Amino acid sequence: MRMSIRLLVATLFVSLLAASNISRGAEDTPASDKPAAKKTRTLGIVLYPRFELLDVYGPAEVFGNLPGKLKVVMVAEKAGPVTSTQGPQGVADYGFEDCPPLDLILVPGGFGTIAELKNQQLLDWLRARSGSAELTMSVCTGSTLLAGAGLLDGRRATSNKQYFSFATARAPQVQWVKEARWVDDGNIVTSSGVSAGIDMSLHVIERLFGTETAERIANATEYQWHRDADNDPFVQFAK
Amino acid sequence: MRMSIRLLVATLFVSLLAASNISRGAEDTPASDKPAAKKTRTLGIVLYPRFELLDVYGPAEVFGNLPGKLKVVMVAEKAGPVTSTQGPQGVADYGFEDCPPLDLILVPGGFGTIAELKNQQLLDWLRARSGSAELTMSVCTGSTLLAGAGLLDGRRATSNKQYFSFATARAPQVQWVKEARWVDDGNIVTSSGVSAGIDMSLHVIERLFGTETAERIANATEYQWHRDADNDPFVQFAK
Repeated sequence: MRMSIRLLVATLFVSLLAASNISRGAEDTPASDKPAAKKTRTLGIVLYPRFELLDVYGPAEVFGNLPGKLKVVMVAEKAGPVTSTQGPQGVADYGFEDCPPLDLILVPGGFGTIAELKNQQLLDWLRARSGSAELTMSVCTGSTLLAGAGLLDGRRATSNKQYFSFATARAPQVQWVKEARWVDDGNIVTSSGVSAGIDMSLHVIERLFGTETAERIANATEYQWHRDADNDPFVQFAK
Repeated sequence: MRMSIRLLVATLFVSLLAASNISRGAEDTPASDKPAAKKTRTLGIVLYPRFELLDVYGPAEVFGNLPGKLKVVMVAEKAGPVTSTQGPQGVADYGFEDCPPLDLILVPGGFGTIAELKNQQLLDWLRARSGSAELTMSVCTGSTLLAGAGLLDGRRATSNKQYFSFATARAPQVQWVKEARWVDDGNIVTSSGVSAGIDMSLHVIERLFGTETAERIANATEYQWHRDADNDPFVQFAK
């Protein structure tokens, strides 16, 4: 009888261990509908002068609809208002120095990219923070900044189609993919221009939290999600 | 000779008057590709606590890509930062009292709509400013605020599909259209939920500045524009 109880306890222990491994494994399984881990992730979206509005707020909309699972914060060189290419201002909750640990990072594009490629403080911050993040993302010409930070050497990535040669000319060390709505290269995911950032974000939500969650958010925001990363209707405008 | 000069001056005056009327007429032609009037229009997007991010920044992105033709400003009860439903803050450039004249007005939706329906200052401001504006627009539950301001009595309008009964229950005097991506009712144009605001905005850009301009912006932002106002893929989720 004593042996039976020990056996029972041992069996229970092994079962619990297995269940815990399965649960942990669920996060690594792409397109899984298994429940996500309980930790609340923090996504930091980087703002800089003349960022493109929708590159920031498209992803912020879909990632911002995961209360309890994910928190969206805005980060810039200094906390406070930052003016977009289109005129309206965003607000950085944190400066680079006081920014909390980030699980996910997203870098937008915009005309400001040109100036930021010379901003060593931003490039250094991106390199350091991306090293400790689970995932780093970019929208539009934001991938040129990831390349400038040395994060895309030998990696597959994409960029805005109407400014594609802007990216390829500045970073020939990157395996640029012209025909792609977005490119998932493991811990770095880059998207094509502006609206493509929403499709990439829904893909990342699917990867982290499952298909059902991503579909729920797409339907709630009445967004017709383009699910095929290789289907790029705007490659015809590539310059 | 004196009479001839008078005749010439009179003829010139009439010609100039006619030319000015033709030029003004071009603006009233829907879907026209004729050159737009030279006046820079001002679009005021209304912010309030718990506005929906993409309801604001989707339209701000496309309207913000018309430099020289249109300027986007953000307006709230008071100038300064305003927090969205998703967390990130927008910035109101003007308060209701110091807001410049507006040619176009856009009211977003979001969970904050519920509280704002009791905000008499906002409803009064909307009623007054809409009266002198060329066009008033709403996205998502923003149409409930237009209805609350008495701007939709007997008019055709739509709203977010997942909160459709929220609109119909509060404003039975409106001809609510359930199956619509957006509804153009002349000087008032209302859209369905969140992303539908981008399609409505491109429609308004087409109406004011021509098809070519709207297509150029859709392609530059890599947005697959849903052109059919009556095609509503999200009516199936109407509640």
